[in-house]
Formats: sequence, C-alpha cells, structure tokens
Amino acid sequence: MTALSQIYEKSNIGSDLLKPLQTLVSSDLERVNAIILDRLKSPIDLIPTLARHLIAAGGKRMRPMLTLACSALVEHNSDRPIRLAAAIEFIHAATLLHDDVVDESELRRGVPTANSVWGNQASILVGDFLFSRAFELMVEDGSLDVLRILSSASSKIAEGEVMQLVSSKDVTTSQNTYLEIATYKTATLFEAACQVGAVLDGPNLENERALASFGRNLGLAFQLVDDVLDYQASSEMIGKNVGDDFKEGKITLPVILAYKKANEDEKKFWQRTLGTKQQNAKDFGQALAYLNKHRALDETLTHAQTYIHYAQESLIKFKPSPYLSALFDLCEFCLKRAF
Amino acid sequence: MTALSQIYEKSNIGSDLLKPLQTLVSSDLERVNAIILDRLKSPIDLIPTLARHLIAAGGKRMRPMLTLACSALVEHNSDRPIRLAAAIEFIHAATLLHDDVVDESELRRGVPTANSVWGNQASILVGDFLFSRAFELMVEDGSLDVLRILSSASSKIAEGEVMQLVSSKDVTTSQNTYLEIATYKTATLFEAACQVGAVLDGPNLENERALASFGRNLGLAFQLVDDVLDYQASSEMIGKNVGDDFKEGKITLPVILAYKKANEDEKKFWQRTLGTKQQNAKDFGQALAYLNKHRALDETLTHAQTYIHYAQESLIKFKPSPYLSALFDLCEFCLKRAF
Repeated sequence: MTALSQIYEKSNIGSDLLKPLQTLVSSDLERVNAIILDRLKSPIDLIPTLARHLIAAGGKRMRPMLTLACSALVEHNSDRPIRLAAAIEFIHAATLLHDDVVDESELRRGVPTANSVWGNQASILVGDFLFSRAFELMVEDGSLDVLRILSSASSKIAEGEVMQLVSSKDVTTSQNTYLEIATYKTATLFEAACQVGAVLDGPNLENERALASFGRNLGLAFQLVDDVLDYQASSEMIGKNVGDDFKEGKITLPVILAYKKANEDEKKFWQRTLGTKQQNAKDFGQALAYLNKHRALDETLTHAQTYIHYAQESLIKFKPSPYLSALFDLCEFCLKRAF
Repeated sequence: MTALSQIYEKSNIGSDLLKPLQTLVSSDLERVNAIILDRLKSPIDLIPTLARHLIAAGGKRMRPMLTLACSALVEHNSDRPIRLAAAIEFIHAATLLHDDVVDESELRRGVPTANSVWGNQASILVGDFLFSRAFELMVEDGSLDVLRILSSASSKIAEGEVMQLVSSKDVTTSQNTYLEIATYKTATLFEAACQVGAVLDGPNLENERALASFGRNLGLAFQLVDDVLDYQASSEMIGKNVGDDFKEGKITLPVILAYKKANEDEKKFWQRTLGTKQQNAKDFGQALAYLNKHRALDETLTHAQTYIHYAQESLIKFKPSPYLSALFDLCEFCLKRAF
C-alpha cells in the first residue's frame, strides 16, 4: 500500500473539508429541502412515502450545493438557484431509484433501497414521477437555457447507464470506455449543476465553460473515488454494502487497471467472478489482493487526483471569496472523503 | 349479449374510420417518423435498436396524429407540430417501455416486448433516454407553454401508473378511483397532445380548453375500449395477449362493474383470481361468463360511448373542415376499432 492510499485510508478529515461549503449554503439548502418535500406531494401516498425514504435518508445534497455555490460564485442574487437545485436533486433521485432497480441493490445510504422495500415496480414509476417533477420545476423557472442544459444532461445520464449495462461483465472494457461511462452517468449531472449556476446570471460563456469544466472534473473524481470505496471502505462509511460493484459484476477503473497487468490466472479469475458472476465467499478478498498487487486502487486515486487538479484549475479565474475557498475544499473532500 | 357489443364485435369498419385522419396527416406523419428515427440515434447501439423495436413495431401514432390534426384545426401553419408530435410519441414510448416492465408483459403490438428481448434493465434505461429526448425536442421548440403542458402531463401519467399499481389486486376498487386512474395514465397524454396543437397558434384559451376536453374524453373512451378488448378480442386484433389484464390482476372497469353486481361466490372468484392472482386454466373463461352475465363489457362500452359523445361535443365550436370530420370519424373509430 502506497503513501496516497494510506493517507486516504487514515483520513478522517474528509468531512471537515465539506463543512465550509455546507455552512455557506445551509440556509439556502434548507429552502431547497422545503421545496423538495413540498413537490413530493401527491394524492397518491406511496409517491411521497417512497421518495422521502430515499431523499430523507440523507445523501450530501452534493449537486444542489454545487448549484447554490456556483450561482453565488458568479454573484447571482435571486431565489432561482433554490428551485433549480431542487430540480437537480429530483433528477438525481430519479436516477438513483432506477439505478437501484437495474443493479438490484439492497442498501443505499445505510438503509434498505426503495426497491427492496416497495418493489421494483413502484421504484420505476416514482422515479418517472420525480423526473417529471424536475422538469415542472425547471419550467416554472422559465429559462430555456437551463432546460436545454438539464434535458441534455438527462439524455446523457441515460446513455451512460446503458453503456454501463452493455459493458457490464466485459472484463476487457478499456479505460477510455470506462471514463466515457463515468463522464456520462456521473460527471454530466455535476457539470450541469455547476453550469446552471453560471447561466442564471445572463450570458457569460467564459464563466459557463469554467464552471462546467469544474463540475465535470469533480464528478469524474467523485466517481473514481466511489469505485475505490466500493473495494475498501466499511459499509458504515459509504452507507452501502462494500463489494456491491464486485457482486454486481461492474467493471470499474480499479478492475480495468488490474486486468491490464493481470497474468493468465488472474485474467481467468476476473473472467469467472465478473465476466460470468460465478463467485464464492473468498473471491472478494482475492479480488482485493489482486487489486493491491497491481496498485490498482492507488492508481485509480491518482487519476482522481488529476481530475481534482483540473477541477481546481477551472476555478482559478474567479476572484477570491468564501465560496471559492469552499469549492476548493470540496475538491479535497471529494478525494479524501471517508464517509 | 346486447346490440351494442354485437355491433362492436362484428365491426370491421373500425379501420375505415381512421383512414380520413391518416390520409390528411400522412405526409406530416412521415416527417414525424423521420424525426423519431433521427433522434433515436446514440453512440450506444442498444438504444436505437431497442427503441426502434418498439416504435417501428407499429402502433397507430394516435397521439402524434392528434397533435398534427388539432394544430391544423386551429389553422396553425408551421413545422412546429411535427417536432412536438415526435416529442409526444417519445413520451408515450417511454411509458410503454416502463409499463411493460412493471406489468411483466411479453407481447406488445404483436411482437415480443423489449423487456422480454433485452431485459428489464435495458428497457428501464432506454425509457429514461426517450423521456429525456422528448424534453430536448420540446426545448428546441422553445415554447414554455408546451413544456408546461407536457411536463405536467408526464407527472400525471406517472401518478396514474402508481395509482394503478396501488389498486392492483384490490377487487373493491371503486368506479371513481378507476376513472381517475384511466384519466391520469391514459387520457392525460391524449389531452396534452390535443392541447399542444391549440397552443401553437398563440393564446386562445377557448380553443385550448375545447381541444383539451376533446383529447381527455377521447383518451378515456380509448382506455375503456382497451379494457373491453382485453377480454374479448383475439390477440391478432389487439397485438397483445388477450387476458393480459386478467392475468396481471388488473382491476379494470368491466371487473369493477361485474363485482358490484356479484353474488358471494362470484366475489370469492374475483378475490381469488385477481386479488391473490391464484388462477387456473379455466378461470379466464369463467371471468368472461361473469362479465357477460352482468353485461359488464356492454356497460363499459356504454361509458366509452358517453365519453366519445363529450369528445365530439367539444369539437362543435370549430368550423367545418376535412380535419374536423376526420376527428369526428376518429371518435367513431375509437369506439369501433377492431384491431
């Protein structure tokens, strides 16, 4: 185990790095949460019940915080980011509900998934509802630019999910394909959340590009760190079962990097465990050993670090402010997060 | 069996009544189809493959035709209805993909469902993609009024589907609850498709209301006839398996009407077959016998006829034109359709 992953493993300062941002946006975030709860209302009780189960179970509200912070960074001053942050969280929640059905996940944010409580059917349909509600909120905001960014982001997220499904179980997936999937399925919504913040203050293509790039790179790093956590965190830390990706046969960057350096026996191991999902109780430990042998988790974190570097570079053009520092800290948090 | 259902059963003139509309919009509909095919494009082959399977398998393009015809009725003259008709068909296709997963359907429009060919996961995600693409098309059109109508309709459709899921297997579902479900899950998109046609020509609340009412009532009738067809059509006629609703434990209007008049034995029968879905080979025939005993299919068609009457009344304010006659004929088709 190298220095980087040791720092990463021991880190418990992750949450401290999130605090500056959380403090700055806390009152706005409460208003976002109020809108979320209000807009979950429906004559059909199951809809708010199921959706609240997911949304109230926590989650860091990363994407809404980004919209709030980025709009503050460009000194935009209105209530619009509040409603749009809620819309973005709705899109995120919709994709989570559908993801959990697709992945047959049982645990999310430390509690049973909606599909494991209410079944796949309800999760699919409530996901559709949340997605529609997101667009209703955007229409109320009235900006076609925002609608353009978020409808395009939604298409890309779905494309990323399909890409992931298609390459699922394919142990020969290339690093480039994987990064494309991560960009589409995860980074796109981070990018859109930040870009929307910039768009609100009227046309400023330079700000828009800078914040889009910030969000995209942050999102990519976020996904890569997630991939690592799935192999080495405890389930209390990440709120889902460690080894879920392995169990579901997901080909993530650590696996791709280890497979590249694998000998014939190892290749057979990956093919059996992820390619055909024939796994026994000892396989996860063996997988971890192979990943460590080739320093694949470390190397994944190095990639994440590079994206964080790009993300921070995108922010350089903005003048110093508490929001700017908080976003820099968020980048560090993303790398070191330990929960 | 009464006169109405005999006429209905023997009818083979249904498709003739659809022809006037099909002829009037045929060249526009070709352009709608071209947009649909173009917008299914994606770097991920599975997306157009799966979506084309559904969309190219046929379907009458009822909702796009309504948008085209209603915009022509208000003498709107632009290309906008073409793109919006494609968006509406995308929303419809997305709901079909998700419905078939929720209902575990195996046959749609006479061919195996997408979920039975490519699995539930792909159907869920491609549905999400189509839904997002629909909004992208609407954003390109640029009308916030249209976006408002269709995002609100999408929420209602999802609510209707959840309502249906919740009341599934509940043989005591009331007629009112059922009509609410049908309004939400089916009539809403018919209503929106027609209303959008009226909206394109600038604000004219009277036209908008009239065409929304036309669409809503037509959609309700459409759903009720569907419910009847599920019990008495042949699978060649409706392109799905007869008895699907029964097999899936769906409580449709015919069942609700028969249950209201049922004796204790019959109530036990409905409770066993639909309430607990314990069915044997003879049950479908028995169900049909009970429905006929209480004239429940006839009564359902009478309800459909009433809604068709309302739909036609909504059209009275428009001056005579080939489009107006074609929409009147469509109403008759909806009642008498035999495929």
